[in-house]
Amino acid sequence: MNFHSSPVMAKGFRCASINCGIKEEGKDLSIFLSDVPASAAGVFTRNLFPGAPIILGREIIRHGTLRAVVVNSRVSNVGTGEMGIENARRMATATAKAFDIPENEVIMSSTGVIGCQLPIEKIEAGIPGLGENLSLDPLVGAEGIMTTDTYPKAISLNVDGATLTLVGKGSGMIEPNMATMLVYLFTDAEIPVAALDRMLREAVKDSFNMLSVDSDTSTSDTCIALANGLTGPVDHDLFSQALNAACIEMTRLLARDGEGATKLVTATIHEAASESEARFIAKALINSPLIKTMAYGADPNIGRILMAVGKCTQCTVTPEKLSITINDTLVYENQNRVDFDEENVRSLLSGEHVAIGVSLCVGKASATAYGCDLTEGYIKENAAYYSS
Amino acid sequence: MNFHSSPVMAKGFRCASINCGIKEEGKDLSIFLSDVPASAAGVFTRNLFPGAPIILGREIIRHGTLRAVVVNSRVSNVGTGEMGIENARRMATATAKAFDIPENEVIMSSTGVIGCQLPIEKIEAGIPGLGENLSLDPLVGAEGIMTTDTYPKAISLNVDGATLTLVGKGSGMIEPNMATMLVYLFTDAEIPVAALDRMLREAVKDSFNMLSVDSDTSTSDTCIALANGLTGPVDHDLFSQALNAACIEMTRLLARDGEGATKLVTATIHEAASESEARFIAKALINSPLIKTMAYGADPNIGRILMAVGKCTQCTVTPEKLSITINDTLVYENQNRVDFDEENVRSLLSGEHVAIGVSLCVGKASATAYGCDLTEGYIKENAAYYSS
Repeated sequence: MNFHSSPVMAKGFRCASINCGIKEEGKDLSIFLSDVPASAAGVFTRNLFPGAPIILGREIIRHGTLRAVVVNSRVSNVGTGEMGIENARRMATATAKAFDIPENEVIMSSTGVIGCQLPIEKIEAGIPGLGENLSLDPLVGAEGIMTTDTYPKAISLNVDGATLTLVGKGSGMIEPNMATMLVYLFTDAEIPVAALDRMLREAVKDSFNMLSVDSDTSTSDTCIALANGLTGPVDHDLFSQALNAACIEMTRLLARDGEGATKLVTATIHEAASESEARFIAKALINSPLIKTMAYGADPNIGRILMAVGKCTQCTVTPEKLSITINDTLVYENQNRVDFDEENVRSLLSGEHVAIGVSLCVGKASATAYGCDLTEGYIKENAAYYSS
Repeated sequence: MNFHSSPVMAKGFRCASINCGIKEEGKDLSIFLSDVPASAAGVFTRNLFPGAPIILGREIIRHGTLRAVVVNSRVSNVGTGEMGIENARRMATATAKAFDIPENEVIMSSTGVIGCQLPIEKIEAGIPGLGENLSLDPLVGAEGIMTTDTYPKAISLNVDGATLTLVGKGSGMIEPNMATMLVYLFTDAEIPVAALDRMLREAVKDSFNMLSVDSDTSTSDTCIALANGLTGPVDHDLFSQALNAACIEMTRLLARDGEGATKLVTATIHEAASESEARFIAKALINSPLIKTMAYGADPNIGRILMAVGKCTQCTVTPEKLSITINDTLVYENQNRVDFDEENVRSLLSGEHVAIGVSLCVGKASATAYGCDLTEGYIKENAAYYSS
């Protein structure tokens, strides 16, 4: 897929971000707006302690039509009881009023510290100001939703005459279960709600749901798609392919920018007994602290790969049949280490992307999971994190 | 339970350790010897790539009688194919010959790097020398089985006239599934094999199987119990209680000495719907990198605790009912943060033991899991680890 070198917004969408005073510096409030009502679909975290915006969001998305997404960063509105629900509602009300759109066509997200109430007055006071600087650059909207991300993330591409734009944030507490972190998809293609929902769920399955920065499932994960139809109908197969590719690309960006990460780590399992086993083992590899530190240390530690496959005791694994590659170099087969060029593999491991491949040779299923290395930066960021 | 202030060996057991040249410095080979045949039971890793000593050990333990345990450190004899099996056998043969005992009454362990062949000649050459320095101090034997442990670990206690001694090593790649790391139990009580096996499995369940340093299940985990009967029969209930307590104490020592750890972290789940759910959630808390870094940073981050409970989506959790304590201070209930003395909790979190308690109020089951904090030390140790 060809992504635009500089991302652009799909036709009829605009965005803005400001500092409304939640963060000491940097943008902390964003809006994404469609000029016309857009078909909408969404998937949310499965965490049993969902944030207030998730609880409300599940209701709002049922309506199937959205005009705006409003997002604050720094405070996540999770573990905040009834007042949290009320505050999330107030975000939507303020947005509906400021932009003269129906309240039930505004969805809200909050990301950041858990367990504190939103500074809702600051947000309400800030929302009208968002209307003054609406931009066609999706990176502008991406800026206001960042927490520990090191840069704003947006990608876009053309598909069958339409444009598809993704804006996302990630970093830590990331092992999505259903949706992931905050990702918003905007397209000017005309797609009915049911089709959009089906295509979104399909795309999320092999992308965001195969991403893990630290095996911790956030309470705020949200992925929303808006299709405003301004360029008319598109071929659904082509659109679906583009959507899958774009979600995987965003997944790679989020993994690579995981907290403290210095590189992207992918694990691909081939010839597994079933898709669910392939996915389970790929995730086990990506989540293993010993594999993550091995990637950081650029050491071709075959033992750790064997260990991580082997701890998936519920899966079909036949030790005699398994082979392992590191960045496409065969390093293990027939129950023994292969005599590979170690210096070369170390140098591949020192690059931007560590790719572990495991062929189980027990079936036909495959899966890829996306993660990052584990470094002192992750510890520093999370041990120094002050929750109040 | 009263553990001896200096651990002693159970009657009729002796041990020794030497450097046989596998490590550049420090002990790398140990023996534990019973003067008479001892009833034996054992549990081993469930990892699907078990080391050669595990594959053989499962056969050997069926015999029900052992005279000796021989262990080398630094190289683990895992992922070594047929030659690995042959080398493990050679360790037993050399030990049987040197100590004039039956070969099928010798069990072997190897711990350290995965995927390299054992330097079996060095081990064979070293074994006879072990006989020259047999000691009654279990710490002597503990020294030769250390890898990244920071100190040798042994505990002992009296039970119904007999002595029970445990020797163990831990550190990294620790989330046992069945047994754990290397732990050897010696007692001069007279206990039939079947009872010993039952009591051992019962004790392991709530101790080593509830331990996790990094969620990674080793390929070499082994826990072996030897009862030589020299002090005669004991009350089985009393012995079982002592065994449970001793295994939990060793679990705490292993957790506290996890790679890079600065403190012990325990998670206790109360009033869960079932024991398996209590165990699952307790483990999820102990394994969460965000909880582990929170413990390191001594921050009472309630949001991370909610997140980690909430990601156990297959368990019965009712957000309205849940309450949380940190080192016995109530910090969350009724869906909201409690107004607790934050400075006091931060100071408790700065201590040697972070104790997280979660009451689910949905049933009667409970469980405790044991782990440690996640620090730069873990990263340093594992990113710098050279596998060849």
